[in-house]
Amino acid sequence: MSILVVGSVAYDTIETPREKRDRQLGGSASYFTVAARGRVPVRCVGVVGEDFRQEDLDLIAASGGDVSGIRRENGPSFHWSGRYHADMIERDTLATELGVFADFRPEIPANWADDEYLFLANIHPALQLQVLEAMNGPRLTALDTMNLWIETTPDDLRAVLAKVDVLLVNDSEARQLSGRRSLVHAAAAIREMGPARVIVKKGEHGALFFGRDGVLAVPAIILDDVIDPTGAGDCFAGGFMASLAAAGADRDSDDAPFRQAMIEGTVTASFCPEGFNVEGLLRTDDEAYAARRRVLLDMMTP
Amino acid sequence: MSILVVGSVAYDTIETPREKRDRQLGGSASYFTVAARGRVPVRCVGVVGEDFRQEDLDLIAASGGDVSGIRRENGPSFHWSGRYHADMIERDTLATELGVFADFRPEIPANWADDEYLFLANIHPALQLQVLEAMNGPRLTALDTMNLWIETTPDDLRAVLAKVDVLLVNDSEARQLSGRRSLVHAAAAIREMGPARVIVKKGEHGALFFGRDGVLAVPAIILDDVIDPTGAGDCFAGGFMASLAAAGADRDSDDAPFRQAMIEGTVTASFCPEGFNVEGLLRTDDEAYAARRRVLLDMMTP
Repeated sequence: MSILVVGSVAYDTIETPREKRDRQLGGSASYFTVAARGRVPVRCVGVVGEDFRQEDLDLIAASGGDVSGIRRENGPSFHWSGRYHADMIERDTLATELGVFADFRPEIPANWADDEYLFLANIHPALQLQVLEAMNGPRLTALDTMNLWIETTPDDLRAVLAKVDVLLVNDSEARQLSGRRSLVHAAAAIREMGPARVIVKKGEHGALFFGRDGVLAVPAIILDDVIDPTGAGDCFAGGFMASLAAAGADRDSDDAPFRQAMIEGTVTASFCPEGFNVEGLLRTDDEAYAARRRVLLDMMTP
Repeated sequence: MSILVVGSVAYDTIETPREKRDRQLGGSASYFTVAARGRVPVRCVGVVGEDFRQEDLDLIAASGGDVSGIRRENGPSFHWSGRYHADMIERDTLATELGVFADFRPEIPANWADDEYLFLANIHPALQLQVLEAMNGPRLTALDTMNLWIETTPDDLRAVLAKVDVLLVNDSEARQLSGRRSLVHAAAAIREMGPARVIVKKGEHGALFFGRDGVLAVPAIILDDVIDPTGAGDCFAGGFMASLAAAGADRDSDDAPFRQAMIEGTVTASFCPEGFNVEGLLRTDDEAYAARRRVLLDMMTP
């Protein structure tokens, strides 16, 4: 039982009103793997450049990630740079230097093609489709995407969407992809494109799960302080997929394990903004996790 | 056991992308009373002008409201006019004609001063305080306010806030009143001003209850279609207060009846946007209410 994740392994330079951090560990696959917290083995497929520090790969490995699928290429690592506004929600992208990620062609090691859970983090949908087709029929595939692909490669996106089980998007992406303003209409339209289940992430307002048999609304856990929200969506995905894999769920399961996974994803994601890069995630332990899970369930109990 | 509500009884002219309605029944006290659905007697204190149609007063009375506290004065009724954007959330105020409401001085009929539940809808905070002081110590007082009073009459607002048990505001008002961006910090700051319980309404994202012993997050019920969202906040208050009054709760109760009242307020408010003015509320019955209550609880159950 393991999860294969394909995504970016990168450096982020993040500026907040209080602090700036240069070239720290980032990227969707990194956040996803650290967030899974070793509950289920995660195999990472990605690419880094010559400048990537071995200690950062070691950190991913220490969190239970198999990093042997992360190739090192000649050139600089993917580097994203952004500045958060005072509200710690809005942000401006200052630079996106793709580096070796520009020519990323995911290669699935032969003995990884049997992995049962597949998370296609936000990369070009044509690459997502190639990965999916290189696998030997995973039990469950979830996919993340972004406005760039919705706008520029809609046909590629539709092709891969037709073959995945779960889509994770934020509310504006759900509206853009479906052309519908109401989230219930947007989710219904997206489900017609392929994924039987749709998760709409709403940041500080939590997330909605549109399943086969109903809707679950999970609030975001209210945080005392937000240091750096970058990566929270990928952390949600890590907690979500780890929960499904640990439960042995697949696309034919009823909604119950998915609803449960929404809780675990939300709890996991809540630690992310409490530190820069993966620091907030690394500081947590089973006790802190269980305590926060109780807080969330109490927030949902009339 | 009855609820006294003091607020506006008005005419609204509402324009949406699909339709326009002229001078239809509106005002916080009207919505509040119709929303309470006769579960608890509601006594309305307000003022209308010569132009106010008797059939509209009759409609409030038919919903269980005692309208004998609504005085008729010489002059035009309060008239608000607004236009909704395509998202049915943002709106522009086109006109606010206060009419007889400009000189509204609430007078509490002598035998109403013993009412145990008091809802101070959004009017000038100095008037809210006068009403509160004219009462013989209600068991529970809730208050609504708006950005206008936060900005222009902060001292009056602080004076009345110090004496109420529950404050209902939207998220931007909570931030403005407290000067804090984080809603948990905002709620904590507001509780220091007086109200032991604070409800932060977030529109399509639901509402947060900050109680003595924890936080409850209630999602908004997802609607198939939004016709006119005007008044939904007052409908929430009507359902909320009716639930508390029916339960016999007071300020010394634990959080349980307040958390329950959050559910009833949310279910009640969900019918409001499904029709113009109070039409959505009037169309509902016990069966529809119970069905929607089940939908909401299912949305909150992992």
